[in-house]
Amino acid sequence: MKSTPINFQQKLGLISEHWQPRVVAEMNDYQFKLVKIQGEFVWHSHAETDEVFMVIEGALRLEFRDGKVELRAGEMYVVPKGVEHRPVAEQECKMMLIEPRGTVNTGDVGGPMTAQNDVWI
Amino acid sequence: MKSTPINFQQKLGLISEHWQPRVVAEMNDYQFKLVKIQGEFVWHSHAETDEVFMVIEGALRLEFRDGKVELRAGEMYVVPKGVEHRPVAEQECKMMLIEPRGTVNTGDVGGPMTAQNDVWI
Repeated sequence: MKSTPINFQQKLGLISEHWQPRVVAEMNDYQFKLVKIQGEFVWHSHAETDEVFMVIEGALRLEFRDGKVELRAGEMYVVPKGVEHRPVAEQECKMMLIEPRGTVNTGDVGGPMTAQNDVWI
Repeated sequence: MKSTPINFQQKLGLISEHWQPRVVAEMNDYQFKLVKIQGEFVWHSHAETDEVFMVIEGALRLEFRDGKVELRAGEMYVVPKGVEHRPVAEQECKMMLIEPRGTVNTGDVGGPMTAQNDVWI
């Protein structure tokens, strides 16, 4: 067995760019990704899967077409599959995404904010 | 959409007993469970699934037949399916488990530490 745990702050220290999720662990066919974000992402949805957002540092706003939710460190939210959402962070926010392997960050819309998938740190 | 996030400390405040996982969220067919532990659990394994341990407060030792790993707040570990393990916490530890719905805490061994499954808070 591997004898060291995955330390979120140590891994986050390896990330410089915003909106570039990095895989730190897999459980069955799900991936745990750390990401630093700042500003507004694109509106998108994931037709095939729910998506978990967990804030580690800072604050995240998840906007929906019919409302929004504000998350801080120590909080999580599950965006149901098929629901359009837009992550927004006024200041830099460090968070974890949990979703099936192969899930693309921009979901069904693509575009220039689409990150390379399955990049490990 | 629900307009409030899941706050770990608020949910943990609703838990009094040790070794009684409580479900706080579902993502597809996976559950996020919060639990307070103290002392030694039983040796067990889960034949069908990996299992994620994420420490929120305190310290956790995961013992394996061939070693151990020590986790603190802000750290996680994935125990691969089929691998015998024993969680131990010298002092009270607050943590999150992530695993498929239906996963029993004592896995294949059962016994008196088996908790009621699928209890939400």
